[in-house]
Amino acid sequence: MIGLDWGTTSLRAYRLGTDGQIMARRDMPRGILSIDSDGFPAALHAAAGDWIGQGDTRVVMCGMVGSRQGWVEAPYIDCPAGLDGLAAAAVRVPFEGAELRIVPGLSCRGGGGARDVMRGEETQILGALPTLGGAEATVCLPGSHSKWAQVSDGRVLHFATHLTGEAFSALSGHTILARMMNPSAPFHAGGFARGVARAKQPGGLLHHLFGLRAASLFDEIEEDEAASFLSGLLIGHEVASALEGGVAPPVVLIGAAALTTRYAAALDAFGVPHRSADADAAARGLARIAERLP
Amino acid sequence: MIGLDWGTTSLRAYRLGTDGQIMARRDMPRGILSIDSDGFPAALHAAAGDWIGQGDTRVVMCGMVGSRQGWVEAPYIDCPAGLDGLAAAAVRVPFEGAELRIVPGLSCRGGGGARDVMRGEETQILGALPTLGGAEATVCLPGSHSKWAQVSDGRVLHFATHLTGEAFSALSGHTILARMMNPSAPFHAGGFARGVARAKQPGGLLHHLFGLRAASLFDEIEEDEAASFLSGLLIGHEVASALEGGVAPPVVLIGAAALTTRYAAALDAFGVPHRSADADAAARGLARIAERLP
Repeated sequence: MIGLDWGTTSLRAYRLGTDGQIMARRDMPRGILSIDSDGFPAALHAAAGDWIGQGDTRVVMCGMVGSRQGWVEAPYIDCPAGLDGLAAAAVRVPFEGAELRIVPGLSCRGGGGARDVMRGEETQILGALPTLGGAEATVCLPGSHSKWAQVSDGRVLHFATHLTGEAFSALSGHTILARMMNPSAPFHAGGFARGVARAKQPGGLLHHLFGLRAASLFDEIEEDEAASFLSGLLIGHEVASALEGGVAPPVVLIGAAALTTRYAAALDAFGVPHRSADADAAARGLARIAERLP
Repeated sequence: MIGLDWGTTSLRAYRLGTDGQIMARRDMPRGILSIDSDGFPAALHAAAGDWIGQGDTRVVMCGMVGSRQGWVEAPYIDCPAGLDGLAAAAVRVPFEGAELRIVPGLSCRGGGGARDVMRGEETQILGALPTLGGAEATVCLPGSHSKWAQVSDGRVLHFATHLTGEAFSALSGHTILARMMNPSAPFHAGGFARGVARAKQPGGLLHHLFGLRAASLFDEIEEDEAASFLSGLLIGHEVASALEGGVAPPVVLIGAAALTTRYAAALDAFGVPHRSADADAAARGLARIAERLP
């Protein structure tokens, strides 16, 4: 079979064996934002047409490809939800020469009845399940929209999203903070740790943000350190909020190492155990959903 | 005498009588960002040259005109500080035909030793003192960089700045939230109240921000309401943090009505008494500093 993790800015295609092992992997900068509304069949042909031609005609896709701006909308299903629920609600997509389905996203209501949503992460979380065991677990997927999910008995019970990555881009690029940071400086572990430590103190995020400006006026922070400080400050506030909501340690981190190592450092600062799951959890999730398709 | 409140984006000039009453007021879009480093004398002539020519040769200025990017730098002085301290540290500026001085800004160290600074607000706060009485008071000055100051016996004891206004601009203009709001919609009191109410719930600001995106996916918030919701969310988080730090009610609000009415509504939602001070507190502060100049 073929599995596609098709997001906003990138497309990852997997060719999967009968037992779910990854035979081949392709990364392309063909996220849905780069594709016209009628351009999806051609993009799929470009990504995996040769595999389909060789007889792999079962294709399962997850991610923003199922959003309103994607190929075909696969409406969100409510938590709690597991692999069976995702498979049952997967949406068929007409396509010449292959059987295509799109996995729905998940929705839940959190504190105060507020909505939350995910698309693509549900497949990663449930793909990592075999390594989580049956007990309750907390999974964290860092990103532009970081997810913290509570999982138990093979189902996502509820989750919370934090706008951390996007807030970093907006605040570092479009406020007075932009003037005091060198955006091309490499990651500065000391600055990041200072930011996390600040997040653990009272005062609130909006006050802590101005403190970065004030520190630079007194030469108490270097240009090469400021962006990492801001990253630590935001991730620290995210982690603090997630911990207040309750987690089941060790927190399982899923994602690219560049980000998960930062979250690991922040969790260390809060004294919370953590471990990493396979970065290809999406492939395993797609294979396990394919097995359950009606 | 002449008093100038000379900020980043605007310049307000006051002609003041001997007892500090306002004889004339001029507003100009000539903030320091619009002025070349050698353009300040000409800008002062344009703003108040006729008053100087008529014999008002004492000129006191406050605000960003005393910053490193201003006319002449007037270094910050440390809290606690009152009118006498500001007058003693006012910096002389050479100028043909008038005696010019720039009031310094204030600096303090808050929780965790973090720096904070203000420039211009100290003059407004101390200008409002006669209406505050001698007892301890909390003064809030909403803005791009909102200030919350503790005042007692005529001195600013300490203060905390929140990057609320700038965060609103960056988040509403440069994240996915921009897609779901009508930026030209008028203020929506109901949306603002919903945002403040959300800020009072757990979850953290970064999570609450994503909730606005999720609500729009389910048509649970209108485009015309979303910007006011975001404003309420951010101001609500600011107020919650300020209250955690401790305030002496009633909180005294200083600033333009468009913003102070929002803070008044947020304080109402938290059940905290408040009142407004005169929006021309800067003029009174400049006059009182002038009386104390060495």
